[in-house]
Amino acid sequence: MELHPDRLFPSDPTIRNIARSLYASVANLPIVSPHGHTDPAWFASNAPFGNATDLLLKPDHYVFRMLYSQGVPLESLGIGNGDADPRNAWRILAEHYHLFRGTPSRMWLDWVFSEVFGMTAQLDAGTSDLYFDTITDRLASDDFRPRALFDRYQIEVIATTESPLDALDHHASIRAENQKAGGWQGRVITAYRPDTVVDPEFEGFADNLGRLSDLTGEDCFNWQGYLAAHRQRRAFFKDMGATSTDHGHPTPRTADLGADSAKALFGKICSGEFTAQEAEIFRAQMLTEMAAMSVDDGLVMQIHPGSFRNHNDPLFRRFGRDKGADIPMRTEFVANLKPLLDRFGNDRDLSIILFTLDESVYSRELAPLAGHYPCLKLGPAWWFHDSPEGMRRFRHMTTETAGFYNMVGFNDDTRAFLSIPARHDVARRIDCGFLAQLVAEHRIADWEAAELAHDLTYRLAKKAYRL
Amino acid sequence: MELHPDRLFPSDPTIRNIARSLYASVANLPIVSPHGHTDPAWFASNAPFGNATDLLLKPDHYVFRMLYSQGVPLESLGIGNGDADPRNAWRILAEHYHLFRGTPSRMWLDWVFSEVFGMTAQLDAGTSDLYFDTITDRLASDDFRPRALFDRYQIEVIATTESPLDALDHHASIRAENQKAGGWQGRVITAYRPDTVVDPEFEGFADNLGRLSDLTGEDCFNWQGYLAAHRQRRAFFKDMGATSTDHGHPTPRTADLGADSAKALFGKICSGEFTAQEAEIFRAQMLTEMAAMSVDDGLVMQIHPGSFRNHNDPLFRRFGRDKGADIPMRTEFVANLKPLLDRFGNDRDLSIILFTLDESVYSRELAPLAGHYPCLKLGPAWWFHDSPEGMRRFRHMTTETAGFYNMVGFNDDTRAFLSIPARHDVARRIDCGFLAQLVAEHRIADWEAAELAHDLTYRLAKKAYRL
Amino acid sequence: MELHPDRLFPSDPTIRNIARSLYASVANLPIVSPHGHTDPAWFASNAPFGNATDLLLKPDHYVFRMLYSQGVPLESLGIGNGDADPRNAWRILAEHYHLFRGTPSRMWLDWVFSEVFGMTAQLDAGTSDLYFDTITDRLASDDFRPRALFDRYQIEVIATTESPLDALDHHASIRAENQKAGGWQGRVITAYRPDTVVDPEFEGFADNLGRLSDLTGEDCFNWQGYLAAHRQRRAFFKDMGATSTDHGHPTPRTADLGADSAKALFGKICSGEFTAQEAEIFRAQMLTEMAAMSVDDGLVMQIHPGSFRNHNDPLFRRFGRDKGADIPMRTEFVANLKPLLDRFGNDRDLSIILFTLDESVYSRELAPLAGHYPCLKLGPAWWFHDSPEGMRRFRHMTTETAGFYNMVGFNDDTRAFLSIPARHDVARRIDCGFLAQLVAEHRIADWEAAELAHDLTYRLAKKAYRL
Repeated sequence: MELHPDRLFPSDPTIRNIARSLYASVANLPIVSPHGHTDPAWFASNAPFGNATDLLLKPDHYVFRMLYSQGVPLESLGIGNGDADPRNAWRILAEHYHLFRGTPSRMWLDWVFSEVFGMTAQLDAGTSDLYFDTITDRLASDDFRPRALFDRYQIEVIATTESPLDALDHHASIRAENQKAGGWQGRVITAYRPDTVVDPEFEGFADNLGRLSDLTGEDCFNWQGYLAAHRQRRAFFKDMGATSTDHGHPTPRTADLGADSAKALFGKICSGEFTAQEAEIFRAQMLTEMAAMSVDDGLVMQIHPGSFRNHNDPLFRRFGRDKGADIPMRTEFVANLKPLLDRFGNDRDLSIILFTLDESVYSRELAPLAGHYPCLKLGPAWWFHDSPEGMRRFRHMTTETAGFYNMVGFNDDTRAFLSIPARHDVARRIDCGFLAQLVAEHRIADWEAAELAHDLTYRLAKKAYRL
Repeated sequence: MELHPDRLFPSDPTIRNIARSLYASVANLPIVSPHGHTDPAWFASNAPFGNATDLLLKPDHYVFRMLYSQGVPLESLGIGNGDADPRNAWRILAEHYHLFRGTPSRMWLDWVFSEVFGMTAQLDAGTSDLYFDTITDRLASDDFRPRALFDRYQIEVIATTESPLDALDHHASIRAENQKAGGWQGRVITAYRPDTVVDPEFEGFADNLGRLSDLTGEDCFNWQGYLAAHRQRRAFFKDMGATSTDHGHPTPRTADLGADSAKALFGKICSGEFTAQEAEIFRAQMLTEMAAMSVDDGLVMQIHPGSFRNHNDPLFRRFGRDKGADIPMRTEFVANLKPLLDRFGNDRDLSIILFTLDESVYSRELAPLAGHYPCLKLGPAWWFHDSPEGMRRFRHMTTETAGFYNMVGFNDDTRAFLSIPARHDVARRIDCGFLAQLVAEHRIADWEAAELAHDLTYRLAKKAYRL
Repeated sequence: MELHPDRLFPSDPTIRNIARSLYASVANLPIVSPHGHTDPAWFASNAPFGNATDLLLKPDHYVFRMLYSQGVPLESLGIGNGDADPRNAWRILAEHYHLFRGTPSRMWLDWVFSEVFGMTAQLDAGTSDLYFDTITDRLASDDFRPRALFDRYQIEVIATTESPLDALDHHASIRAENQKAGGWQGRVITAYRPDTVVDPEFEGFADNLGRLSDLTGEDCFNWQGYLAAHRQRRAFFKDMGATSTDHGHPTPRTADLGADSAKALFGKICSGEFTAQEAEIFRAQMLTEMAAMSVDDGLVMQIHPGSFRNHNDPLFRRFGRDKGADIPMRTEFVANLKPLLDRFGNDRDLSIILFTLDESVYSRELAPLAGHYPCLKLGPAWWFHDSPEGMRRFRHMTTETAGFYNMVGFNDDTRAFLSIPARHDVARRIDCGFLAQLVAEHRIADWEAAELAHDLTYRLAKKAYRL
């Protein structure tokens, strides 16, 4: 359970020594977290987090998907079942903890157990209650409230993700607190994630347009009104600190239909009578519309495509979204992005950050695109690939063609607040190991590696996200 | 030619030391071979194997495909040509043995030469006759008969693969021998491979349905009779030791048509008037039907998709199947498996083992699917990827997302009986090297690696295949 | 800036020692460059190369694409802008030189700076003028003229690439020079690249057919005349040293339509009224026609598919081709090559060399195809993958299935003449490192590695290209 100081560094002594020294120079840099899904209510209210199960097990679909895959019913963990005893649920995790060997969840959890809660024994059936009690007790103390951990974690800035329908009340509270004399100074910003009002196949899409109309005073069933509502909400999000938008489409398809066709398509979408193909083209058109607005308002655009959401239909119908059943799909960028790029690709003021779950596009499509188009940058290894091996593959497959400076540093992309430093630490260690290999093979100089380690850890994220 | 005790371990001294010690703990575990293509007649009759060429060259399409790719005519090896002199054919192999540098065939053959036949010189033109004579002589002795080698190889259980049309006489003989006082105790089981009566595009499909009718007394041109015949043969195969079925479809497409549509489609198939698309949907429906039967009878289901069989048409017309011209194709699992998974994916009693020849799906599709669905497990690196580099990629690309415990250990998948221990040995060495790297990078503890080495070598295969 | 003698060798001491010794045995072998894009006018005229910017920056789309991706306007580099000061353009490169960290361009340029021009300081803003002046001065001296560098580089043979419409005057001059008493002995050959008259979507296709008619005296708007013109030009290219043809199609699709359908399709193509699909089928048919001609005349066929040329439409309209906006696409070989292979795949006299920009096909499609078909060989890692990591992936993903002897050694594929030895040196170092790993893991013997190092560096290229 004690974390080894050399963990994740390559074993070769030459490389390890270089990696150690690079890591020492970046290990204590502040955390810049420009993309994630923490709950702003935590920082607005600063209420204690609750028990170990409610904080660390029930919301973490990385963790419970693995238990589920091995036959553990979700109900026994308290998911979709308010009656489950959290101590028993924790014991199930403890008894199955060997399932996580070799996974990033194991590393993140072990870091939280050791560094945050000071546990020294390994989690297993015999230590389950000790873990549950210790963690739950500590969470009740002031030192483990959200703002205290935020400060202890040295987070310079964190972005959350909200729908245009969100009133951003928590963000408003935090900003009020920031401005109070002696108030908490944590910087928590939002990001504009319009899927709920851009994707015609999203649950409740028509209702959502209605709510957007109410919120903005625009007629969102009229194409011009709908676009104006987006502009208005983007401006409001920007006022509340947002520097970016985020788009979770099934594919990165873009379109540039022209005003009349776009308006006609929107009419069909609003009528509720549209095909899957029309929904896809509408999402495609909206990526281009969002790019046009970004050219105007300067918000950085993030595209996160390629997840088949809620693949397990019976599970979705019973338990809802985000239950560990989102499965990556093959993703094509070269033809899909062309309409948007033909219109805005050479615009130096536009910044689009691309993510993928399909590693076969790293070297084939993404690195060549980012190594040419002024508006494109590559986001870090994402989701399932946010892992030591995933990050290594990302660096090995993109660096030679895209270069380091068409990257944006690390995103933790998590709702698991307690593990944020663990995640950034993994990225720092893997990057330092990668740079150390380049130095050991005499491909870059040691002083260049030191500069790059700092860039990858801190400077690139701030620059790319305009923070 | 002497095999180095450290072969296939990574060169880094820290990792190598750990790998050595892990390997020492599993090197002598018995062989569990739950999927392969050895001939049960060997073990039933226990007749000697014949000469070197007939045993080691002519049946091994891994070997003769490489010779063929460099211009060696198959006839000169005795393939499709009974007149070829086996000694001359062997000499052709010897003269071209450098072609196999860096290939798994080279490792497997060298192991057989050294460990089974005690050869000390390397195979080349100068040693060709020495090899041919030594191997051929030894094969004539009792110590090299099939059962003697089976025992010497410490095979705990081996599965062969048979069509539903097979009467399983050899398996019956072996079982009778097993039950005789003082009889041979080798455990040889079958597996249910119904491609010949499930794939409408298989050579002789209609005749095969006729034979299945004769064998079962069911009318296999009637949908209900056809399904009943499958159930009956599965039960018989289970009586003869089978614990699994095996499905070699072009794609992993599944369907869930409903009883009426399935019956209507089967009518078209039986009429012989069907399109390629209808044949594909029928195979898709049959995967779901087989899953339904597995829920009932407990047979583990293996799906081996993605091979373009007999790609070389002139060669196929002249020499028939299995002549080294099966070429992998891009394979999609996420959409293809959904109909089956929507029906049975959450069934904890169903076990489906997935294989692929398309490594791009390891991290994108297979690991996420297996890391969520209770019924899914991942088979080992298959066919062309059953190799040191192939196994390393498999571990690196699947472990973080699927975890070790959604894997099934190693399959040798071979008809080359003599090389079976060599193949398991390669897997044990590569796995120990991989685990050693995790230990050296402080990602798992040494005692965990030791437990995992045993799991990957022995326990997972027994559990996954219900042996 | 000093190049380290161990650069690109793996860091592990055991492997590095073996790699050093293998490399020492091949480092000074002559350069065989069977595929590339140098300008034969250089060797025909032997005129000095001009200034640093005109030679090293403006023609190198690997270099200026990276600058462009980070916001540098192409005009500022003198591209599409004759007024730009070359010294200022060079300064822009110097100021942005950190962008190339970790890229092959950086390695190639550093080699040229250090080994050709003797620079000792690193290129940056402070040394920009020193670099520009030193390089420009030296280029004016006789020792840096094209033929002097060719000899200094120990180039045994280099192939350029020309269109059938090229009169090959420069090649004729060079051959005349070769035959003169005391004349320069450099061997510069051409290769037949017919895209301009084979691809109906090429700019000016109809005009090109007209010019081909004029050049050959055949009626190239008549199917038989068109094929006869190809045969005539191929024979002429062969007289001028060509041993190969080269085909840069969007996909590797092939067709075998039969004479009547092919003729009818050609009629449609000539009429100018054809669909994109028909253009694709015509290109497909032409690959098969080219293979038929290769069976007759012995020219080795190279297929370079999968690049989306000129993806950046506004940039293409302003600056033309080859401006760093060619982006790889997913590429399928198994179904696409089948028509050609069904006709010629088993012909031992035909030789087809396959390249790809889609690394996912290395292990899935290309290695299995090359490991079976007598006519197929694999070209080296191409374009974006002509890099240390790209070459390592190529070797790791193809060797086990295709074997070393279905490969063709290294191609530099460049128009950047000065960097040719740097590129071959990278390949030699990476190959020696890969072989050293195989030796260190006891997968091949040291003497086999030495033989293979020589094969990969020299013998395979000469044999595959019939040089």
